Amino acid sequence: MKRMLTSSAVGLAAVVFASAAFASDLKPEEQIQIRQAGYSFMGWNMGKIKANLQGEYNAEQVSAAANTIAAIANSGMGALYGPGTDKNIGDVKTEVKPELFENMEDVGRLAHDFVAAADNLASVAAGGDKAAVKSAFGDLGAACKACHKKYRAD
Amino acid sequence: MKRMLTSSAVGLAAVVFASAAFASDLKPEEQIQIRQAGYSFMGWNMGKIKANLQGEYNAEQVSAAANTIAAIANSGMGALYGPGTDKNIGDVKTEVKPELFENMEDVGRLAHDFVAAADNLASVAAGGDKAAVKSAFGDLGAACKACHKKYRAD
Repeated sequence: MKRMLTSSAVGLAAVVFASAAFASDLKPEEQIQIRQAGYSFMGWNMGKIKANLQGEYNAEQVSAAANTIAAIANSGMGALYGPGTDKNIGDVKTEVKPELFENMEDVGRLAHDFVAAADNLASVAAGGDKAAVKSAFGDLGAACKACHKKYRAD
Repeated sequence: MKRMLTSSAVGLAAVVFASAAFASDLKPEEQIQIRQAGYSFMGWNMGKIKANLQGEYNAEQVSAAANTIAAIANSGMGALYGPGTDKNIGDVKTEVKPELFENMEDVGRLAHDFVAAADNLASVAAGGDKAAVKSAFGDLGAACKACHKKYRAD
């Protein structure tokens, strides 16, 4: 793994919970950390769905994973890209390219596509049809990559 | 903030997505990182609900936040407490007390209460009644604390 999480996010969560709540009240480094936590947790759930598609299919697990991705996608993560979050802050590194902050209209379109694909996967996964989930999962992966390709540093 | 996240969780997500998907396939340090990401992201959403209860109430934002917490709570995080995740691993620190792993029946009850409280909050938040949300939010906070008190190191 390229870089390691050295923090206790339990501690972070406690700080977030106890202190101001909106992104505008969060320090830029906290915004970076929380958006990364969201992507990390979505990544775990993407991985679970992928494994189900490649192996034994547990419709309940896939649906729970898809619901989690959709909920995180709909949680308003845009608020975690506030001023000052376009660069590394001390030990808190971001992989976002500065170009993202200069193309918010394009990013908005990509985010809309991503949310739509996540909602669709959650809806399809509830039906339990593996082939349909495979297709919807591919669409969601493509929506992820469309943004990574443009705005995530390698 | 006591400790800082120094990783890019975007990178972590990519690793998780590309590699094996189930917790049993994840290294202990990856399991710790992903469970912390989940708590961190829930913490952000708890904070948003708290701020809405204390200030201007945006029912849509509260419902999205409550849905996110419930989805993460239902995502099967128990799988992220595998063997070897009871202690710090290099720079990856855990705040879980070793006692958690010795009392899985009790932990299971606490987790069940937590999931029930999260589901209830999501359900109540969809209704948009601020007073009812305040009560359900208090119940969820109590369910969080019940586990923290016993099994989270200070």
